Amino acid sequence: MPNTLAERLHIDYPILLAPMAGEASKAPLIAAVSNAGGLGVLGAGYMSPQKLLATIAEIRALTSRPFGVNLFVMEPGERNAAGVDAMAQALQRYHAELGIAAPALPASLEENYHSQMEAVLAANVPAFSFTFGVPSAQHMAALKAGGACLMGTATTVDEAVELERRGVDVVVAQGAEAGGHRGTFLNEDFGQAMIGTMALVPQVADAVRVPVVAAGGIADRRGVRAALALGASAVSVGTAFLTTIESAVSDAYKLALTGPGSRNTGVTRVFSGRPARGVRNRYMDEMQAFETTAPVYPVTNALTRAMRQAASQQGRAEFLSLWAGQAAPLSRNWSVAQLMEELREGLGQSDLPLSG
Amino acid sequence: MPNTLAERLHIDYPILLAPMAGEASKAPLIAAVSNAGGLGVLGAGYMSPQKLLATIAEIRALTSRPFGVNLFVMEPGERNAAGVDAMAQALQRYHAELGIAAPALPASLEENYHSQMEAVLAANVPAFSFTFGVPSAQHMAALKAGGACLMGTATTVDEAVELERRGVDVVVAQGAEAGGHRGTFLNEDFGQAMIGTMALVPQVADAVRVPVVAAGGIADRRGVRAALALGASAVSVGTAFLTTIESAVSDAYKLALTGPGSRNTGVTRVFSGRPARGVRNRYMDEMQAFETTAPVYPVTNALTRAMRQAASQQGRAEFLSLWAGQAAPLSRNWSVAQLMEELREGLGQSDLPLSG
Repeated sequence: MPNTLAERLHIDYPILLAPMAGEASKAPLIAAVSNAGGLGVLGAGYMSPQKLLATIAEIRALTSRPFGVNLFVMEPGERNAAGVDAMAQALQRYHAELGIAAPALPASLEENYHSQMEAVLAANVPAFSFTFGVPSAQHMAALKAGGACLMGTATTVDEAVELERRGVDVVVAQGAEAGGHRGTFLNEDFGQAMIGTMALVPQVADAVRVPVVAAGGIADRRGVRAALALGASAVSVGTAFLTTIESAVSDAYKLALTGPGSRNTGVTRVFSGRPARGVRNRYMDEMQAFETTAPVYPVTNALTRAMRQAASQQGRAEFLSLWAGQAAPLSRNWSVAQLMEELREGLGQSDLPLSG
Repeated sequence: MPNTLAERLHIDYPILLAPMAGEASKAPLIAAVSNAGGLGVLGAGYMSPQKLLATIAEIRALTSRPFGVNLFVMEPGERNAAGVDAMAQALQRYHAELGIAAPALPASLEENYHSQMEAVLAANVPAFSFTFGVPSAQHMAALKAGGACLMGTATTVDEAVELERRGVDVVVAQGAEAGGHRGTFLNEDFGQAMIGTMALVPQVADAVRVPVVAAGGIADRRGVRAALALGASAVSVGTAFLTTIESAVSDAYKLALTGPGSRNTGVTRVFSGRPARGVRNRYMDEMQAFETTAPVYPVTNALTRAMRQAASQQGRAEFLSLWAGQAAPLSRNWSVAQLMEELREGLGQSDLPLSG
C-alpha cells in the first residue's frame, strides 16, 4: 500500500521538515530536505511579506520539488506598554553585558499575519501549514483553490477534531516533546495540552479521518518507526535538522544542541511571549519571574530580538532562544542527505519511492 | 532472536503490569497478568509489611507464574506539623461535604520502607522494582542473592545511568505520559524530568547496557510496537489495566478513566505530597494553591486518605486520586486476557513464547 500522504504531497518519503521560524528559516535547508525526497517547510512566522516572497523564490531556485510554508495564525496584538517597560528594564542588564543599546520596542512589530497570508496566496505554495489557530474559511478556500495541501497543528484531540472540521488535509499532532512554540489554540492553559507523542498520536489517529503527521521527539530511524506504528502517516522532524551542515543557525546554537546541556529543555514564554521549548540556559533561568507576566507574542519576541541577535553574533548561547525538542541529544553534525537516509531507515517497505 | 528480558523474567511476553499502589494493588489483577504470560507487579508502596506479605501469599495462591513487587524507596519523613494544619483546614470542607469526621493525621503513617523491604526479602520475590530512589547496596545484594530481577525507575538519562551503576538488571524508562507518581529521584524539580516516552526511551537505550522497559502512554498494540521500535525490550502498562474486569478499583474511578474527562490529566502534589499524574477533577483544581506547600509524602497521602476512601465508597470521583496516564482514553472495559491479547499484537515474531 503506497503512503497516501506522500502521494498527496508528491514527495518520495513521508518525512517533513518541521517549520522553524527565525535563524533556521533559510532556503538552503528547506530546499535540501525537499531535494532529498522529503518536504522542506519554511517557518515564516517572523518574516515580513517581502522577505517571505524572496525566500520562497530562493527555495524555488534551489529545488523543483514540493515544499511548504508555515505561518502563525494570529490577530495583531496589543502592544501592552506596561508589561513592555518592566520587561525592557529586566533585559537591560543583558544588553549591558552584550554592550548593545538599551532594549526598546521597534516602531513596527513587522510580523503581520494578514499581509503574510497575502504573500503566501500570491506565491501559490504546494503545501501550507499553520500554528496557533486556523485561517479563515476564505483563506482556507483560496489556499485549496491554489492547490496547497493544508496542514494544521494540533496539541490535543479536540484541536485535531476542530482542524478536520475546518477543512485541513492533514493534522500535525505536536507532542509535548516538540521543540519551539507550542501550537495550542483551544486550551487557555497550554500546560493542559502537553501530551506526549506516544499518547497523542494514536488518539488523534482514532479521532480524525485525515492523515496524521507525528511531531515531537523524533530524531532517528527509531522515532520514525515508532511514529508510523502509532498510526501516523508521516513524521515531522525539526531539531535534528538544525545541526546539519545545511542549517544556517549559529555555531553557538549547534553546539548547545549537540552538547550534554541539551538533555535539559524547558518550555518558556520569556523569549517570545508564547510558550516554546528550548534548551535551558541562563536567560531562561534568570527570567523565570516573567514566565506569566512577559507581554504576549509578538511583543516580547520583538523586545528580545536585539539581545538574541547580538548573542548570536558574539557566540553567547546563554542569551539565545535555543529552541529544541526533547530528542535534541540524538542530533548529529552531518548533512541533510545523511539525516534523511537515517530517517528513511525507519520507513517500512510501503513507504519506498512511488515511481519505479 | 529471543527476547532476553522475557527470558530473564521467565515470562512468555515482555509485557509488565505497571506497579499501581492503592486501590489497584490487589492480588487478582497481578495474578491475572502473570497468568496471561506477562509480569504482574504489585504496587506495595502504601502497604504495611503484614499486608504486603498477605498479598504476596494471595498472589502465589492464584498463580504459579513469576510476579514482581514495587516499593517506594524513601527514608521516614518529618511529620511537618505546620503544613499539616493548613492542609487539614483546607480539607475540612470536603470532609463536611462527604459527611465524615474532621481530617487528622493518624498516629502512625504506616508506610515504612525499611520494614516493607524486610517483608520483600522474606518473601523471596521473583522480581523487585523500585521508585523514588535506589535501595542500599546491602538490600540490592540481598535481593539479588534471593534471585530477584532488580528493576529501577528512571525519568531521565542521568537516572538511568545511575541505576545501572548501582546494579539494576533492568531500567524502567518512565516517560512524562505515565500515570501515577513520577519516579524522579535526581532532579530536585520534577518538572525538569518530564521527558516524553518517544524521546526518553531511545536515549536511555543508548546510555545503558541493561534492558530497558518503556513506560508511559502505552495502552494498545500501537504503543507496544512503538516502544519496541524505540529500543525498549519490554513495556510497562498501567492505566489500561485499571479498567479491566479483574481490576478492583471503584466504578467511579473506572468511569472517570473511560469517560471523555480522561483526556485531561495533570501532575499534582495535592493528593500524596509527591507529583503524580491523574485525571483532573474538582479537588485537584480547587487545591492548586497547595501544589508547592502540601506536606511531603507520605504526610499528605495520610491526610487525604479518609477523604479518598469516603469518596470511593460514595462514588464521588471529584475527590478521588484518579491516577491515570495520558493514554487513558484508550482504556476499555474488558478482561485482562483480552487486553493482553491486544498488547501481544504489538510484539514482533521475536517476542513469541520461547518454549515450543
